[in-house]
Amino acid sequence: MKTKDIYKSFSKVQQIIIDEIQQLDSSSKKNITKWKHGQGGGGISCEISGNRNIEKAAVNFSSIIGEKLPSSALEKTGMKGLKKFNATGVSVIVHPWNPKAPCAHLNIRFFEAVVGKKTIWWFGGGFDLTPYFISKSDMLFWKNSAETLCNKYNKGFYKKYNNNCNKYFFLPHRNEPRGVGGIFFDQLNNLDYDVCKSFTLDCAATFIQSYSKLFNKKKNLKYTKKERAFQLYRRGRYVEFNLLYDRGTLFGLQSGGRTESILMSMPPKVSWSKDYDFEVYEKKLLKMFALARQ
Amino acid sequence: MKTKDIYKSFSKVQQIIIDEIQQLDSSSKKNITKWKHGQGGGGISCEISGNRNIEKAAVNFSSIIGEKLPSSALEKTGMKGLKKFNATGVSVIVHPWNPKAPCAHLNIRFFEAVVGKKTIWWFGGGFDLTPYFISKSDMLFWKNSAETLCNKYNKGFYKKYNNNCNKYFFLPHRNEPRGVGGIFFDQLNNLDYDVCKSFTLDCAATFIQSYSKLFNKKKNLKYTKKERAFQLYRRGRYVEFNLLYDRGTLFGLQSGGRTESILMSMPPKVSWSKDYDFEVYEKKLLKMFALARQ
Repeated sequence: MKTKDIYKSFSKVQQIIIDEIQQLDSSSKKNITKWKHGQGGGGISCEISGNRNIEKAAVNFSSIIGEKLPSSALEKTGMKGLKKFNATGVSVIVHPWNPKAPCAHLNIRFFEAVVGKKTIWWFGGGFDLTPYFISKSDMLFWKNSAETLCNKYNKGFYKKYNNNCNKYFFLPHRNEPRGVGGIFFDQLNNLDYDVCKSFTLDCAATFIQSYSKLFNKKKNLKYTKKERAFQLYRRGRYVEFNLLYDRGTLFGLQSGGRTESILMSMPPKVSWSKDYDFEVYEKKLLKMFALARQ
Repeated sequence: MKTKDIYKSFSKVQQIIIDEIQQLDSSSKKNITKWKHGQGGGGISCEISGNRNIEKAAVNFSSIIGEKLPSSALEKTGMKGLKKFNATGVSVIVHPWNPKAPCAHLNIRFFEAVVGKKTIWWFGGGFDLTPYFISKSDMLFWKNSAETLCNKYNKGFYKKYNNNCNKYFFLPHRNEPRGVGGIFFDQLNNLDYDVCKSFTLDCAATFIQSYSKLFNKKKNLKYTKKERAFQLYRRGRYVEFNLLYDRGTLFGLQSGGRTESILMSMPPKVSWSKDYDFEVYEKKLLKMFALARQ
């Protein structure tokens, strides 16, 4: 089983990212919960929060054993005769205090299943950035780091995976992207296992490096009450996306996953009221979202 | 078409409820938006908010003409050959400032369709109460007013409609009811049209009377920062219900309804962080939710 190998590597990824996020806020504390899954396996959830920079971050690891694949996953692959599967993953989300610092999300996952006498596997993952205020140069820095990562592996990856990301992180009812994007890939197994694994781990490394750089640049900037209110208002979009569309969230909740871990990604404070006129902020932001898609 | 008659009656209901809610908070202001639906018809959305008692309330009227029934509605009735339908309704939600005052929700709706050469119609609706702090006597007052209303029409209504309400307003991923319940009915057409209409309008009247009474009793009670934080935290459950399960919300968003009107029910301020230890509050509240189901 490759899952054993991945278990170790992904656990290490979780540990590294926890440490990196704690370094972003010297006041931050972590709260770790270990849990078991009904059908086998379990996870380690880590919530980080501080008074200065990290309002709330979640760095969750899980490795689940299952007998019955969710219909959404079966659909895609047309697999029949599935006997057993392992799904291992790390999810990261960071909600900063400072509205000038962006919110960001990472997910890496590995799936392995026995179908008849065959074992199949694939990797999936991606990351995206959801800023409230962002300059063109910072947006391009984020995109370029994703492109550089992809190009190390395959010249076609970036275009494809960036496109996936743009399609996935979109709110049809608002006709709005969730943010400035990043990359998103699924069912990656058309290269050597070692290369696929290396790419997936590199995603996590690129994510935390680029995000930490952006975060540190922004975390001590001054901001107004109105800017903070705009952040809370835009976080509403994040909640709408996660509860209305996010496949991971919906599958997790419907399949009896651990609710507190799944919803750890929810922003700590959210507002659906426009306490100020946000038109100028919103126009600028949506313009940058559109520019990121060009 | 009966829809013409209902249009008038439901418009009046909206007007009465807006006036009643404004009386709950002398500082409150209303913000009215008229909108048109793509396929025909439209609505009037009214948002009310004040500095003292009503943090946010939405009283929305809509009357929509459609050609294609949503699959969820077709499923239920097995109707084929549907040519045209009218759906008219009023939705009300109130989010008070004071955590001691409960949040409440009302919906009434009328559906009329031409199927082949026949015209079919039905009424639906209901109301429920979502408190953060509630005494047994207040909970029983709410339940009794619903039961008294039902008993005026049919001795079997209350048990059936209260049961519907309990089943519908439930969060499986939390294993929690949304509140202390009320009533919920759908496809009511097995009595005379006039009786069904009268019952539906009486629902709205009972709702606003009972709710106003509870609200006025609570709105000036003192509360602590911790109690307010608990209210914001529990509002998270409301958001989860509306975006994950509420048929009206999901259908509205998926069928190209007016997003701002549909999501006007969202609480103004929400929190997914436990700023305090809420265990004692939560235990008491969930005990009352359970008691309301007995």
